[in-house]
Amino acid sequence: MATSLSLSKAISARTYTTSHHPSTPLSHHNLPSSLSLSSSSSSLIKTSSFSLKTSQRVAPRASVRASAVESLDKSTSTEVALIDKSVNTIRFLAIDAVEKANSGHPGLPMGCAPMGHILYDEVMRYNPKNPYWFNRDRFVLSAGHGCMLQYALLHLAGYDSVTEEDLKSFRQWESRTPGHPENFETPGVEVTTGPLGQGIANAVGLALAEKHLAARFNKPDMEIIDHYTYAILGDGCQMEGVSQEVCSLAGHWGLGKLIAFYDDNHISIDGDTEIAFTEDVDKRFEALGWHVIWVKNGNNGYDEIRAAIKEAKAVTTTIGFGSPNKANSYSVHGSALGAKEVEATRSNLGWPFEPFHVPEDVKKHWSRHTSEGSSLEGEWNAKFAEYEKKYKDDAAELKSIITGELPSGWEKALPTYTPESPSDATRNLSQQCLNSLAQVLPGFLGGSADLASSNMTLLKMFGNFQKDTPEERNLRFGVREHGMGSICNGIALHSPGFIPYCATFFVFTDYMRASIRMAALSQAGVIFVMTHDSIGLGEDGPTHQPIEHLASFRAMPNVFMLRPADGTETAGAYKVAVQNKKTPSILALSRQKLPQLPGTSVEGVAKGGYVISDNSEGNKPDVILMGTGSELEIAAKAADDLRKDGKTVRVVSFVSWELFDAQPESYKASVLPEDVTARVSIEAGSTFGWLKYVGTKGKAIGIDRFGASAPAGKIYKELGITKEAVIEAAKSLW
Amino acid sequence: MATSLSLSKAISARTYTTSHHPSTPLSHHNLPSSLSLSSSSSSLIKTSSFSLKTSQRVAPRASVRASAVESLDKSTSTEVALIDKSVNTIRFLAIDAVEKANSGHPGLPMGCAPMGHILYDEVMRYNPKNPYWFNRDRFVLSAGHGCMLQYALLHLAGYDSVTEEDLKSFRQWESRTPGHPENFETPGVEVTTGPLGQGIANAVGLALAEKHLAARFNKPDMEIIDHYTYAILGDGCQMEGVSQEVCSLAGHWGLGKLIAFYDDNHISIDGDTEIAFTEDVDKRFEALGWHVIWVKNGNNGYDEIRAAIKEAKAVTTTIGFGSPNKANSYSVHGSALGAKEVEATRSNLGWPFEPFHVPEDVKKHWSRHTSEGSSLEGEWNAKFAEYEKKYKDDAAELKSIITGELPSGWEKALPTYTPESPSDATRNLSQQCLNSLAQVLPGFLGGSADLASSNMTLLKMFGNFQKDTPEERNLRFGVREHGMGSICNGIALHSPGFIPYCATFFVFTDYMRASIRMAALSQAGVIFVMTHDSIGLGEDGPTHQPIEHLASFRAMPNVFMLRPADGTETAGAYKVAVQNKKTPSILALSRQKLPQLPGTSVEGVAKGGYVISDNSEGNKPDVILMGTGSELEIAAKAADDLRKDGKTVRVVSFVSWELFDAQPESYKASVLPEDVTARVSIEAGSTFGWLKYVGTKGKAIGIDRFGASAPAGKIYKELGITKEAVIEAAKSLW
Repeated sequence: MATSLSLSKAISARTYTTSHHPSTPLSHHNLPSSLSLSSSSSSLIKTSSFSLKTSQRVAPRASVRASAVESLDKSTSTEVALIDKSVNTIRFLAIDAVEKANSGHPGLPMGCAPMGHILYDEVMRYNPKNPYWFNRDRFVLSAGHGCMLQYALLHLAGYDSVTEEDLKSFRQWESRTPGHPENFETPGVEVTTGPLGQGIANAVGLALAEKHLAARFNKPDMEIIDHYTYAILGDGCQMEGVSQEVCSLAGHWGLGKLIAFYDDNHISIDGDTEIAFTEDVDKRFEALGWHVIWVKNGNNGYDEIRAAIKEAKAVTTTIGFGSPNKANSYSVHGSALGAKEVEATRSNLGWPFEPFHVPEDVKKHWSRHTSEGSSLEGEWNAKFAEYEKKYKDDAAELKSIITGELPSGWEKALPTYTPESPSDATRNLSQQCLNSLAQVLPGFLGGSADLASSNMTLLKMFGNFQKDTPEERNLRFGVREHGMGSICNGIALHSPGFIPYCATFFVFTDYMRASIRMAALSQAGVIFVMTHDSIGLGEDGPTHQPIEHLASFRAMPNVFMLRPADGTETAGAYKVAVQNKKTPSILALSRQKLPQLPGTSVEGVAKGGYVISDNSEGNKPDVILMGTGSELEIAAKAADDLRKDGKTVRVVSFVSWELFDAQPESYKASVLPEDVTARVSIEAGSTFGWLKYVGTKGKAIGIDRFGASAPAGKIYKELGITKEAVIEAAKSLW
Repeated sequence: MATSLSLSKAISARTYTTSHHPSTPLSHHNLPSSLSLSSSSSSLIKTSSFSLKTSQRVAPRASVRASAVESLDKSTSTEVALIDKSVNTIRFLAIDAVEKANSGHPGLPMGCAPMGHILYDEVMRYNPKNPYWFNRDRFVLSAGHGCMLQYALLHLAGYDSVTEEDLKSFRQWESRTPGHPENFETPGVEVTTGPLGQGIANAVGLALAEKHLAARFNKPDMEIIDHYTYAILGDGCQMEGVSQEVCSLAGHWGLGKLIAFYDDNHISIDGDTEIAFTEDVDKRFEALGWHVIWVKNGNNGYDEIRAAIKEAKAVTTTIGFGSPNKANSYSVHGSALGAKEVEATRSNLGWPFEPFHVPEDVKKHWSRHTSEGSSLEGEWNAKFAEYEKKYKDDAAELKSIITGELPSGWEKALPTYTPESPSDATRNLSQQCLNSLAQVLPGFLGGSADLASSNMTLLKMFGNFQKDTPEERNLRFGVREHGMGSICNGIALHSPGFIPYCATFFVFTDYMRASIRMAALSQAGVIFVMTHDSIGLGEDGPTHQPIEHLASFRAMPNVFMLRPADGTETAGAYKVAVQNKKTPSILALSRQKLPQLPGTSVEGVAKGGYVISDNSEGNKPDVILMGTGSELEIAAKAADDLRKDGKTVRVVSFVSWELFDAQPESYKASVLPEDVTARVSIEAGSTFGWLKYVGTKGKAIGIDRFGASAPAGKIYKELGITKEAVIEAAKSLW
């Protein structure tokens, strides 16, 4: 309580400093000349205020540039007193909501309220009555636990998704104001955050999407795409490896319209960040090619914040920006202040109002955003109408990306295969699909985590998306799986017509599992192209051989785990993946060659499990053999042998459990008739879960240990993933 | 082939430069004064050679210090020609092995051979005939694909684990030379690497272990622990977020005896690293508090390499070091050179020998390591004997860490509970266990990823392990889950008696899944303390609520997934975790209070699944109810109600599936009699896999969707994780 008290005192103790802390051109004094300020340099700005410490770890400083690209002055005439009042409104909405829920994080909203006010009231362009207006500025709260900041801002700005009632039901069942920002619950929230580092990664994806579209569709006479992406990240985001990965890429790509605010508050849950985080963050960001700006007074140094944003916009590359979170205590981080402390804060800030009250003048001040937003969108719509006239084909492509409506007949572009088509690895067949789809789907783009030539993910008709060639569609993520996945989530959520894919070895989904789960939760239809999907990769050994990965994703909600067996099924898997924009798909693909199997079909894949062959002629087969991916061939060969012995055998492909489980009971029973209990499954992975299909009287052949380093064929044999094992298992069942 | 040819030419084209590229004190010209060279600064050295490029991205430079801590001169008199020959032996052993396997990565061994030679022949202290000698220097090949470098060095140094036969069976079934280094296959290999970034993280753990032990056990008159940890990492390791996490911590902790060599070869699988990796790595490492040294001629500038290591040792904090990998082409990265190219390389390097040949003079030169290593260990053993006499208690503790032999009766320290003990969250009960164990287990230490106060993982009798207090045992990892896990793997593999634990919210195992898998594969008995293990965490919502996580770890080989229901089971889970040094354990613990249940037992936990109550008096019960963790209480309450209705009910705790599945069939049948098909399971997680225990006629109650933000009780009710649901399910089955 004592520390909390010091918070409210600190808030009241702020002074209206007029000095703006004369700038030191930070970037010049210790950057190699190649990294000095230029149109392609990058920036990080942090602000610091409410500091109760006698000494600051890093001296405050700010770099100021003379040039200005855009006036931010339109609101600077707003009286400071009214801004203060608005800022305090934001603070108290957060305090009140957390208090009512008796749960939540008041610290960040209280600290970042000034920056939030300036962003949503003065800087950002959006239309509150259409949260999905295409050319809106995007805002991402990477420090998602501070979501009340965003809810308060959406409320003030006039979004229908966050009414006073919504604020009052903060963190309650089925409310639109959950404990962390969720794009699928709250229009106006762009991406789902909370797991630290995800938001800044999503923001990099959003900014990449903007840069790509602008390069592809803007014309000298018509700038149809020109929005910014703003993000707030805290110390937690900074410590996570994923943020290093994506910030390195943002610097590499020169994403100049990403403006990230670093809430450098020195407080983490375990105490002062000094206990585990003493690196020089400024210097690291300079090393990543960002331009760093400090704002000392992030609390009420509104002009200083404005100047920093102005500078950030002038530097046409990625910009970091920092703000402080003031209270030097963990106690305000993650729990309600308590009635007594709330009262003290009200008293200290001179806030006489009832909980959840928005003063009339603040309300009136913010009310203009509804009409202004409507005008912004209206103007843009008019511009787009003109664009459509002048640039018909481009407009059609862009429209498809904006609306998510796929060009009719797109699926006809998918390659087709027959049993006579040559054997091939599904990773290669996947590349044929990727290249076919990229030609017909305007929003199709992606890449690999430094394994393009192994994952077979290059789009041959396009170049590399790079700083100076952002119109291209091959993304080069480097060895950064986690960042790759989360960037793709951001791209997918930028516009409904974006269909990003990303690739690595299947086993390295372990490095990016958090981003795959976020895709599933936030309904981002990313396609995860995962090759080298079993012991079939051979000599690289157990560190590279997935075992439990199929099972682990089958257990995850809202993901399609697809393991196609040949070209036809690979095409079918891509069809499913493209069609399901709200469910990410993971394709497990082989390194090794596989034959094109008779009986496989695109339609079958859509059902998840289906019969590829059956010689029982409508009667009850003696045995059902099931397989997925590279083992479907083994099941089919075992069936051939058993049939030669006079048995009736059904072979079922189980390419996706989720799709099969979603079929009507009647269909499922038609594939797996209840009275056929002799069932054998084979899959080069964990048997975990297969009991569901083989039943208690069947047998599941799989691998419930780690793999080994040896030629693939040898491992298959030693681990018993063989035709002989299937036949033996089948024979043991009758 | 053309590019490969240029490789062999490049190798032959090297010149014996005598100039050592006069040093520029890099760290002085752009470091804030607080980070300039001092006894607590850190370093990164990179070497660059065989460069075929006309311009180098970063100018070569080297910082040289006058002070020397240790003579490295003993071998400098060795004729350069012999060193060249030894280096070429290493290169050709790698070439020949990759050629024979027709699989593998010759690039790194060829490039890093000089550094490898100097390390194993001149710098490192080890005993080839006892790879487990406690005070040995540790070597980690973080770029694990280059494992032939390490195998060649172990072979030359005289390790019995890598004979000529072993080299010839590189990457073959059951060989001791698998496709990536595996500690459990090859004595002399400290940790398992391959997945990029893991090795440097393990190395940080090894160096932490050394620093901790040295601070705890060394005496002014007796330095009993004083080894170095060397690591080689490449661009791939550098790009991975996990390496940023651990290198930030290494700088923070001041791990001065970690010497990391950065193989800055500009080549990644997708081509030149310029396509995705243009950050200023030197500057980033300086920002992390490392001292950076460049060596221009890493190829045959032996004196330069020696000087850099000398400097690295003089700087008493973390040191990075870099080496080049020479061939500017991906083609040598990951495949055999091919017979023609091998011939060209032989010819260019003047290497007339048969494959796998070690020239006699090279063999003779290296042969001294067997006797030298034996002497080193002998001297140390004598020293330790003296230490044991003078410092009996310390010696006993250290011995326990060295041997892994636990103090007898250690398990008696575990707290005990009765049904009358107060209700408590298992995370709190876990803290009681942790604190009890730390008092009796000398090698017990750990911490949390910035959630110590939520995970309840602080050891109250110890302070924080920090740069200046390394003798303490609370590790503060910051928000770096992935790095945390991999560092703990390194600690566990340092000495058999280390039992590291680490903690975060269970859902964030997604951030560290790769390190948990590496623990399982490399048999590192880390204890993963995972709290907030279900929707029971409430308002933080679906981003924080694990659903599929239990299932996903149950599918993973060699991990115990334990979900204790109360204090007794929590103590039982820790007993299992401590006893099983070769299998990591994951403890899923509740945020919310749980009652101490009648019938739970430590012995029961060891069996994974066991009956906690049954009123059938030896007869067949009407129904079996099963639960884990917080839902065992629900099952028990449902049983109470059903029994009141006159039913006979058995309640089974399924605290660990792996342990249960390992029991004899007779035991399993005694817990789940075949003829009782009315079975209901309840668990606040995915139902995936439960069919195994409830059978096709039973019912599994669980959550096969994402969670929600609301108070915990409300979510339980809305998602049907209730006593009523269990009773209804049971009734539907009879």
